[in-house]
Parts: sequence; structure tokens; C-alpha cells
Amino acid sequence: MNSAVPLPLDLPELDFEAAGGTRIRRSILPGGVRVLSEAVPGARSATIGFWVAVGSRDEYHATATPSGHGSTHFLEHLLFKGTPTRSALDIAVAFDSVGGDSNAMTAKEFTCYYAKVRDSDVPMAIGVLTDMVTSSVIDGGEFETERGVILEELSHAADDPGDVAGNALFEAVLGEHPLGRPVGGTSETIEQATREGVWDHYLQHYRPNELVISVAGAVDHEELLTLVTRSLDVAGWERDVDAKPVSRRADTPARLADTRSLTTIPRPIEQVHLMLGMPGLIATDPDRVTLSMLNAVLGGGMSSRLFTEIRERRGLAYSVYSFAGSHSDAGMQGMYAACAPRNAAQVADLMRAELQKLADTPVSDDELARAYGQLSGRAALGLEDSDVRMSLLGRAEITLGEYLDLDENLRRLARVTATDIADMAARLVAQPQSLVAVGAVDDDLFANVDTRKE
Amino acid sequence: MNSAVPLPLDLPELDFEAAGGTRIRRSILPGGVRVLSEAVPGARSATIGFWVAVGSRDEYHATATPSGHGSTHFLEHLLFKGTPTRSALDIAVAFDSVGGDSNAMTAKEFTCYYAKVRDSDVPMAIGVLTDMVTSSVIDGGEFETERGVILEELSHAADDPGDVAGNALFEAVLGEHPLGRPVGGTSETIEQATREGVWDHYLQHYRPNELVISVAGAVDHEELLTLVTRSLDVAGWERDVDAKPVSRRADTPARLADTRSLTTIPRPIEQVHLMLGMPGLIATDPDRVTLSMLNAVLGGGMSSRLFTEIRERRGLAYSVYSFAGSHSDAGMQGMYAACAPRNAAQVADLMRAELQKLADTPVSDDELARAYGQLSGRAALGLEDSDVRMSLLGRAEITLGEYLDLDENLRRLARVTATDIADMAARLVAQPQSLVAVGAVDDDLFANVDTRKE
Repeated sequence: MNSAVPLPLDLPELDFEAAGGTRIRRSILPGGVRVLSEAVPGARSATIGFWVAVGSRDEYHATATPSGHGSTHFLEHLLFKGTPTRSALDIAVAFDSVGGDSNAMTAKEFTCYYAKVRDSDVPMAIGVLTDMVTSSVIDGGEFETERGVILEELSHAADDPGDVAGNALFEAVLGEHPLGRPVGGTSETIEQATREGVWDHYLQHYRPNELVISVAGAVDHEELLTLVTRSLDVAGWERDVDAKPVSRRADTPARLADTRSLTTIPRPIEQVHLMLGMPGLIATDPDRVTLSMLNAVLGGGMSSRLFTEIRERRGLAYSVYSFAGSHSDAGMQGMYAACAPRNAAQVADLMRAELQKLADTPVSDDELARAYGQLSGRAALGLEDSDVRMSLLGRAEITLGEYLDLDENLRRLARVTATDIADMAARLVAQPQSLVAVGAVDDDLFANVDTRKE
Repeated sequence: MNSAVPLPLDLPELDFEAAGGTRIRRSILPGGVRVLSEAVPGARSATIGFWVAVGSRDEYHATATPSGHGSTHFLEHLLFKGTPTRSALDIAVAFDSVGGDSNAMTAKEFTCYYAKVRDSDVPMAIGVLTDMVTSSVIDGGEFETERGVILEELSHAADDPGDVAGNALFEAVLGEHPLGRPVGGTSETIEQATREGVWDHYLQHYRPNELVISVAGAVDHEELLTLVTRSLDVAGWERDVDAKPVSRRADTPARLADTRSLTTIPRPIEQVHLMLGMPGLIATDPDRVTLSMLNAVLGGGMSSRLFTEIRERRGLAYSVYSFAGSHSDAGMQGMYAACAPRNAAQVADLMRAELQKLADTPVSDDELARAYGQLSGRAALGLEDSDVRMSLLGRAEITLGEYLDLDENLRRLARVTATDIADMAARLVAQPQSLVAVGAVDDDLFANVDTRKE
């Protein structure tokens, strides 16, 4: 297949050569388990990801009570605690004893268990990850011990003003949408969580048709299929051969309430962590490439508009950037800076002004070329890590519905014009904006900042 | 040269094949600039590091007043602010426009400016980094603006209880030794810093014989020498052809005062950040490999002793680990955990007990093999990143005095016995121990923890 064609993930079997001579393959096993691989010539290690298409947004449906919030993340922890054939220590030892980098991540729309190991350790990693994902016992005693660990993890996040600001911004911008909730739940919901609730969540979502296995680096697809099939057979995982693979793709954004707001969270600390955000683009929006270019210009490096205005010219902040997050039916565009309380209102004004400038005046050819250079260079350098490739494959399958290799990615970036970026900025400026400030400030400081509900 | 022989860095010219078929070369240019390269077959990118053998520990000598503290870090920031031929924006644009990952790091004994770029961008990176390091103008206006940025960076660190604990532990363990000071100085010393003081510091230390250039990945040594020589000629850097390259190697540890202490730093936050530390090994100590094995067992992974006892069995912490830091004439061994205030004394006791157990009972053959597997696997996986290779070359030259390739590294790890680890643990247990706690606790909580001066 020509690598110029994005991977059409509706076909069951795929096999094509991507940019740089890697080979991408995809198969669907009976019961709906999807297996994707990208074989990178010369690689001596691989990153293996086991993705389940369930995240914190699914917790309302799973348990119908707020006490279920955080249960996806709780479950992720528990999967490291043992199966009928492996104790928690066995699982830890398996990866530690080969120097593997193994961990898991719970997100709003998926959970991913992954390991980076040397080529010779791939079969071990597939075996252990399959066992963890399919055969967790979720022992009651382990459940109670792990509750303590998770409460400490939440305390750590509560003590991190940047984390607090990020969670508050999602809530402010996405409102009542389930994507607006923090991934880990709260201390209260974790205190209330029950072993039965988490167990039900596990049974409901950890199913063959929600599982995606993606492997990049030193991997042979046929061997991988054999390894996965054998591991699933050992696990004896119940399979419904008629089940269709679950995707999270959506074509249209959810309707959000007008989310204009100002949130100040007082903390007795030296800096104020400021975030300004607004509804962004959904994961399948073709304009996401334009938004990437916009963010390269606005807050993507040491020469970006925000960095230049807020840090280089005025010395008001050490850390300042912009970002975009995309989910299946909602997204967020945001800007971040941490500064002294006395400068917080000025920094918030500068953020708004820089976005407005992008809407008012198209960027120069130079700046457009620089943004292209930045994103294309980063994309190329990023592909040197097999974990990045593994992650791109998994997200393509679960959320995006298409896989772009480097060549196609660069072609799309190159098509973005200065007018496209100005139009995108105007579209963002027209959205209701929310401001979050965590630190030694109160609402009055931002009296002139227009984020009140109309 | 046989790769089994560590790189003897006292020879001026070196050229040998290292494990994995990479080629390592080293040359000394007139005036003492050292150029090291590791060519990795098949690499399409490279990481370039410009190292200057000056760090925060050198600031007493540089300025003879406390107001000089933080001047090395201040200087690092200023080197991004322009030269006679490049503005701050030019420097930022140079790296941003190719998607390069460029930054700098100030440490206690060196400062490193680095960039990771695609192969075709290596000449650009060498040119810009040479200009930055040799020809900074340190404009008075830029100095004042950057003072604000650095004060924000220090505020950020002051709001991070883990950072606060780390700085306090260095002070507690190393006492009056200049390595005990925080790298960035304090808000007070940065408020007092003068452009003249930083300029003097620059003139004194940014000299050809203190500069080490290390490049790993897609690099040809002869081309590199040509590029560097040309860039230095353009800069017109004054060279004293008789100057000897500066090394930071020391053979014996500095004498430290008895640093047994308890430091509590009250903060109104949810967690207590606990650090228990003691004098460790200097960078050239041949027993550092034993200490690495000890830390793999004690606190190096999900199956480590600390992780198992504190997190897995008791659920008292989310983050817990041990670490070792080595400098030329002093080092530190430490343990870290963050937990609820009510559990802090218990966690501190568990840390001490786990180290004591390692001293009392040699580890099993299984655990020894696991530690070897962990460190050897990590070392192999780490070498996939050219930034890791670049960093190993630079540190070998400046601090260690020898370069170990993977094969030699594994040979040394394999020679460590269970008895060696027990002896090392006993040696650490015999050291004066310091405990630091940042959070909602006071001294009384640790009344039973034996860290008082005798």
C-alpha cells in the first residue's frame, strides 16, 4: 500500500510500508482483539502496549454513582497486584529483572499498560501483560492496601499547584461533560470505592473487543500473533466471536454549556499557576493539524509568541506554553504560565492578547516556515523512540481512526496556510474562555479579565 | 583498542571501537578544548553537548561573597540572551525552526548546553552553541529581565516540596562543603547579583581548557573537528596554547563534619516529603558499582525492598525510592518517600530498617541476579538515546576520568557479590544520618528517630 494513504482502520487486515521503511501490520483475532505492529529495521528493543478503550469518562455508566469516580485508575493499580499464577512481586520481578521500563497510564478515554524491553524479552512481556489484563484476581486485602497508595497519589497531585490548575481547567471548560472530571477521582470517591464496584468495572470493560495490543520496534507480526494467541489461550479469556471491536471515534463534538468562568483556588505558595482555556477540537477534526501549527507559533518553543512576550521581553514567568488536548467528542485549547501574584492579571491579559493577535494578523511566511520546521523536526526525532511509535499506533486505532506516517504528517503540515491559522485563532477567540488561578490570589485581581458568564 | 579497557582519558588522542560497534574518538584542540565523539552506526540524529567544568560549588572562589551564589545558573540563562551576531530570538529560532530539543543544565560541578537535532542540523547546532558559549554579550537590560525569570524559577522550586527536601538534604549531609549549597542560589542572592559579578565569573571559567564538547549519534569525528575549529576561529576566542585541560577528578573524599541532623520544614500541604541521607561515594570510587547494585536492591524498582515494604505491603506511599549522587570529592546516598503526616515516623523507621537489613544479611543469589539483570537491561536500553551517550562521554571526561562501554560496565556489575553489597550497606549504616521532612510535621514526631548530633 502507498504510504501516502492514511491507514484505513476499518479494514480488518492491513500490511503496508510506512515512511522510513518500517512495516505496519494489523490483525483482528477471534473475539475482536486487535493486534498492531510496526517493525523498525535494526531495532534491538521494543515497546509493547496493551490498551483498553475505557477511561475515567466511562465511570458514570459503569457504576451510576459518584463513588465510582476514579475506579478506572484504581483498577489500573490493581492489575499489578496479581493473577492466579503470578503474585504482585512476580509481576514486578518479571520486568525489573530485565531492566524493563514498565508502567501504566489511565486517561480519560483509555487505559494503557506498557513495557519497553530488549528484543529477547518481548515474549516475556507479552505473556505477563496478557495475564495482568485478562486474569486479575483483585484480592480484597490488596484492594485495601492499594486504596492507601492511591490516596497518597491523589495527595501528591493535590499538593502540586500545576496539577490542581489543570484539573480545574478541564472542569471549567468541559463543565458537566464526563471528560471534565479528574482521571483519578477524589479522596472522597476513593475512600468510598468498593472492591465489588471496581470488579464490575473490570468485567464490563476488560473484554476482547475493547483490547488493542500495539508493539513497535524489534517485532515480527506473525510471531507476535502467535505469542498473543498463545497467551490468550493460557488465560482462557471468554471470547464472543461476534463482538465488534470497540472504537471511540466520534464525528461531531458534544454540545457543551457556555463554560465561561473564573476559578481561583487559594494556596499559600509563592507562584500563581494560571491557565486560560476554551473548547478545542475533537480528535477526528481534520483541522487539528492547523491547531498544531497555531500552538507551535503561540506557545511551542523558546521563540514562540507567549515565550517571547511573557518571559523574554518582560521576565514575568519561567514556564509558559500553550497546549491542545483532543478527545473523541470534546477537546480543549489552553495556555499556561506560572508567575508572581502581583503579575497574574497582566500575564492573563497577555495570554488573551497573544491569541487575539493571531486572529487579527496572519503570521509571516518566516514564522509559518519556522512552525513547519519545528513540528516536522520534532516528529522525526520523536519516531526514534519505540514508545512514541507504539503510542501513535494505539491512539490511531482507538481514537483517531487513521494512522499517519511521517510523510503524510509532513504533507498535511505543509498545506496549512497563514490564513488557516488566523481563522483557527478567530474560532478559538470566539469560544467562551475560562481562567483558572491557583495561588495567593482572589477573584478581585482578575476583575478586568472578561471570563464571567454573560 | 580493546573495548575491555576503560578509556584512559590522560592520553590526548583516542580512537577505539566500543561495545555495539560504535566508534569513540577524542582529540584536544590547541588551547585545550576537548572534543569527544561517539559515532553510532545507522543514527539519523545526534546530541551535542558543550560542557564547561564550572558549577555552583565554584561560586565561593568566583566571587568571595554569598551574593555570587547562583551566578553559574544565572550565567547559563544569560548565554541564551545573545552574542554580537545573534539576538536571543535568533538563538531560539535556530533550534526551534528545526524542531531541535535544546536546553542547558547547571549542576554542582559543571554546566552543560545541549541540543538534539537531525543529522543535517549538526553543523548549525555546533555553530550556535560555540557562539553562545564563547561570545555572550550579557547585556545589562537582558540581565535585569532575566533576573525576574530566575526568581520565578526559584519560586517554582520553593513551591515544590520534593525540591525543597532535596536541597535541604544536601545541606544537611554535606554541611559547609560548597557541594551542599543549592545550585540556583536563593532569592536573596539573586536579588543581590550584579552584572559585573556574573561577567567576571564568565571570563574566569568559560575558557578553552575548561570546555568539553561531546557528540553522540550521527557524527563523523573529522568533520566535527573541522566544524568546531571553524566555529572557534569565527568566535576569535583567546587561547592560551600552554593551558592544561581542567578536570574535576579527585582521589580522596573531602572531610565532612559530623552531619547527623533532623530538619523539619513546615508546609501546609497534604503529604510529608521525607528524605534520609548520609555521605556516599565520590565519583572515582571503584565501589560505585557496588553502590549501584545496592540501590537496585534497596530502592530501584517495583520489586525493590523499599517499594515492597512501604508501598506494596503497607500502602503508605505512592512514590518511594533510593538514590546515590557522586561528585568529585563528596557524594550522597539517600532514600525518599512521600506519605501522610501520621505515617511519617513509621516510614522513616522503615527506611532505616531496610538499610540495616541489607547490612545484616547478604542478599540471596536470586536477588543479586535480579539486580544485575535490572542494571544491565537499563544500561542497554539507555544507550538507544544519543543524549545518554553524549552525557556519559561528557561526565567521563570531566568527573570520572574513565569511560566504560556497555561490555566493561556489565563485567564490573557481574563481579559484585552479595557480601560486597552487605559490606557497602554496613559502611553506609555507620555514616552519620540526616533526616529531612517537608510538610505538616514538627521535630517531635521524629523523637525516636536517631538523627541527633551525638
